[in-house]
Amino acid sequence: MEYYSKQISKLIESFASLPGIGTKTATRLAFHVIHMPKEEVDTFANNLTSARENVKFCKECYTLTDSELCPICADANRDHSTIMVVENTKDLAAYEKTGKYTGVYHVLHGAISPMLGIGPEDIKLKELIKRLEGDIKEVIIATNSSLEGETTAMYISKLIKPIGVKVSRIASGVPVGGDLEYIDEVTLMRALEGRTEL
Amino acid sequence: MEYYSKQISKLIESFASLPGIGTKTATRLAFHVIHMPKEEVDTFANNLTSARENVKFCKECYTLTDSELCPICADANRDHSTIMVVENTKDLAAYEKTGKYTGVYHVLHGAISPMLGIGPEDIKLKELIKRLEGDIKEVIIATNSSLEGETTAMYISKLIKPIGVKVSRIASGVPVGGDLEYIDEVTLMRALEGRTEL
Repeated sequence: MEYYSKQISKLIESFASLPGIGTKTATRLAFHVIHMPKEEVDTFANNLTSARENVKFCKECYTLTDSELCPICADANRDHSTIMVVENTKDLAAYEKTGKYTGVYHVLHGAISPMLGIGPEDIKLKELIKRLEGDIKEVIIATNSSLEGETTAMYISKLIKPIGVKVSRIASGVPVGGDLEYIDEVTLMRALEGRTEL
Repeated sequence: MEYYSKQISKLIESFASLPGIGTKTATRLAFHVIHMPKEEVDTFANNLTSARENVKFCKECYTLTDSELCPICADANRDHSTIMVVENTKDLAAYEKTGKYTGVYHVLHGAISPMLGIGPEDIKLKELIKRLEGDIKEVIIATNSSLEGETTAMYISKLIKPIGVKVSRIASGVPVGGDLEYIDEVTLMRALEGRTEL
């Protein structure tokens, strides 16, 4: 990388350290930045540091937010007795985009994965159990349909059921608009098992 | 983007404003940054602003560098009487990587493109002509083999020839390792025209 001057090389290295960005893309981005208006670059740098510094866990649901309570937990109009358990903040956002869910969330920040050495104590699970001391009617487990997600869902349900709170799991099946032909067998089997009467 | 807190949204927007980065990738990068060590984020932000602030044109060859003269122009061991004309700093780096070129460069920062309204006065062309007042033996035109690159090469050669400096153009042909079958006709024709006796 010594073909570029030091400042450019350092910027390329910074970009290349991000996931999914190789040296070629990093070089392209670095040169783009050098040609950007100065104020925009300053804003970019500012957004980087301030997001890193100010974003923390919501003290209720553990999503990433910049205030004590996230906007959802702070909203009195939401149903605080229904908790949807998701793996991360991006999954929370995916459900928020549907606009149909009125309950609150709990972000685990991971899923149990014996292969990666991630156990129940490495995700925000005891924080979830603590929340159940309040007046909670239902816990909806919306972890991914992956091996880790399913393991986590199973683990949580076994943990919560004895407490007497209703536990449910989001449905698995054929995605809307999905072509049966291209859908894997496990999903098809799940879709069959979960069929509903019309 | 209101599904994320303000600081996260702003960082996502910053990333998404870069070329070739959509909202999904920007979101992934933003969350990566939030989980990065604080010092690394600070370095990244620092590299952004300092590259933008300190990188300028080399006063000799107009490549992007952070000193008055770029390392190549400042190197007394290079042949300062041979100038290779390239479109941008990345092309210069591509030739430097070969390690075989010992002359100096001239970076045009663009190519003549009537379609995009880029004329000879919009690229660093008069700066090149000014350099020819010195003791220059040869100008090698290494603009791209695109329509714009060829137009620029033609224009420069017509401009320089009357001055009495030798002008050459890098060879066009089949790339090494290239499969004839997949190479376009114009390239094949050029390869034929430019054949050398063995």
